Amino acid sequence: MKNLISLVDKKLDEYMPITYPEDIFKAMKYTLMLPGKRLRPVMCLETARMLGCDIEKAMPAACAIEMLHVQSLIHDDLPCMDNDDFRRGKPSNHKVFGEANAVLAGDALLTFAPQLIIEKSKDLSEPTVLKLVHEFTKWGGAYALIAGQVVDIESEGGKYVKSPEETLDFIHMNKTAALFRLAIRSGAIVAGAEEDELENLDEFAGKFGLLFQIYDDIMDEISSFEELGKTVGKDKNSGKLTYVSLYGLEEAKNKFHSLIQECYDIIGKYNSKIFTEILNKLRDRILGV
Amino acid sequence: MKNLISLVDKKLDEYMPITYPEDIFKAMKYTLMLPGKRLRPVMCLETARMLGCDIEKAMPAACAIEMLHVQSLIHDDLPCMDNDDFRRGKPSNHKVFGEANAVLAGDALLTFAPQLIIEKSKDLSEPTVLKLVHEFTKWGGAYALIAGQVVDIESEGGKYVKSPEETLDFIHMNKTAALFRLAIRSGAIVAGAEEDELENLDEFAGKFGLLFQIYDDIMDEISSFEELGKTVGKDKNSGKLTYVSLYGLEEAKNKFHSLIQECYDIIGKYNSKIFTEILNKLRDRILGV
Repeated sequence: MKNLISLVDKKLDEYMPITYPEDIFKAMKYTLMLPGKRLRPVMCLETARMLGCDIEKAMPAACAIEMLHVQSLIHDDLPCMDNDDFRRGKPSNHKVFGEANAVLAGDALLTFAPQLIIEKSKDLSEPTVLKLVHEFTKWGGAYALIAGQVVDIESEGGKYVKSPEETLDFIHMNKTAALFRLAIRSGAIVAGAEEDELENLDEFAGKFGLLFQIYDDIMDEISSFEELGKTVGKDKNSGKLTYVSLYGLEEAKNKFHSLIQECYDIIGKYNSKIFTEILNKLRDRILGV
Repeated sequence: MKNLISLVDKKLDEYMPITYPEDIFKAMKYTLMLPGKRLRPVMCLETARMLGCDIEKAMPAACAIEMLHVQSLIHDDLPCMDNDDFRRGKPSNHKVFGEANAVLAGDALLTFAPQLIIEKSKDLSEPTVLKLVHEFTKWGGAYALIAGQVVDIESEGGKYVKSPEETLDFIHMNKTAALFRLAIRSGAIVAGAEEDELENLDEFAGKFGLLFQIYDDIMDEISSFEELGKTVGKDKNSGKLTYVSLYGLEEAKNKFHSLIQECYDIIGKYNSKIFTEILNKLRDRILGV
C-alpha cells in the first residue's frame, strides 16, 4: 500500500511540470501534492494488477482520477460552497492562491486529467484510451459527481425533490461512489476485463463508495481536527443530511458493518492484499469508535 | 450565417435534456441558450463544410466548443473573477442560480462537452474522435485558455513576468485565440484535412483570434451597454492591459486593419461566404468608429 502511494505521488509530480504561467500550475499542484491516502488511484492500479495487467499501463488513468478528485475538493472548499479553510491539514487552495486562482486551478485540472490519459497512455490502443476518457467524463460530470454535489448542497438548504432517504442515497452514490466506480472500472478497462467481470467489480465499487461515505459521516461526527486534517462537526452544525443525522450513529454503524461484509465477499475471490488492507483499516477505525 | 446559428441553437438545446437534478442542467443551459453569435461553432462547421464535409459530422465538436466557451464566461463572471452581473444582456449565471451552482455548472460543462463529442460523433472513427477530444483538452486548459485567463487576471494586478507587450500577446493568443483555433482545427480534423491544410487554417485562426480580441478591446472602449449586453468601460476603469490601453485607440485600429487584411488573404482561396461575412461585419463596425 505504502509503495503504491509513493509511486502515485512520484507520478503525479512528474506528470505535471511547472511551466509559464507558473501560478496556475503551482495552484493545481499545491492541493494535488498534499499528502493523502490516494485511495482512488491505488484502487485503480490494484484492480489492473489483480486482473493480470502491468500497473504502469493504468498509471495515467489512476493519476487523472486523483486530479478529478482534487479538483472537486478545491471547488468544494470555496467560500461559496463548503467554505472550508483547511484541507488535508493545510490551508485550502483559495486561502493560499486566492479564490480566482482556485476556481481556475480546478477548471485546469478538469481538462489536464483527460489530456494526461490521452498523452501518456502509450501502451494502450486508441479505442481503450477513448473508453477511459469516456468513463472519466461520465462519472466526473453532471450525471454523477456533480449531480451528487448539487443535491448535497440543496439538501443543506432543506430542499428535497425526493424523500430524505432517497436523496441521501443519491448523494452517496454520486458524490462519493462515482469516483470509486470510475477508479475501479478504469483499472478493469485497462486490463481488458470482460463485461461481466467489469460489472462485478463495479458492484463492489458502488458498495465501497457507500461504505466509505458512511465511514466519513461517522468520522465527521466523532473525530478531531488533528485526525481528519479538516474542519470537523460541520455536517452536524450545518444540519446537513448525512447517514448519521438521518439514521443515528448506531444504525449508521450497523449499516457500515453489513456493507463491509458484502465488500469482503465480492472482493475475496481476488485475494487482493491491498483491498483487504483498505477494508481492514476502515473496519478497525469504526470498531474503535 | 443565420441558418447556421439557429441550427447550432437547436442542437445545443437537443444535446442537453434537463434531467434530475434539474437545477444543475437549468444552470448549464441558462447561459448556454442565451442568444449569441455562436461564432466558434459556426466557424467549426464552416471549416468542415468548405473542406467538403457534411456539417452534421462536425456538430458535436462545434457544440462542445460553444459549451467550453460558455463555461469560461460563467466562471469569468463570478464575483471572485471579473464580478460581472450581466452577460449577453441578461443577469449572469451566479446572479440567477447562486455562486455555488455557477461554479458547478461551469465544471459540469467542462466534462459534458467532451462526453458529447464521444457519444454523438457516430459517423467518425474512434481515432478521429480521440483526436477531437485531445484538441479540446489541449486548448481548453492550463496550456492555453486558462493560461490566458490567469495571466489576464495577474496583469490587472499590475503583475508582469514578461514585458507588457509580450504579456498582452500571450493573453490574446491564449485567452481568445485558443478557442478559435480549437474550433477551426476541429472542423478541419472532422473533414480529414491534411497536415499542411490544418496548419494553414490554424494560422488563420490564430490571426482571427488576435483580430477579434483587438476588436473587443476597441468595442469595450467605445460601445454602450445596449450594444454589447455586458458592462462596458470595465477594462479602462480597472486599469486592465488591453490593446487600446497599451497602444492607444489609433494604433489599435491600425493593427486591426492590417490583421484583417491578412485574414482575408488566407481565407480568400476557400471562397467561404460565412468567413467573408464574419470578417466584413467586424470591419464595418470598426470603420464606423
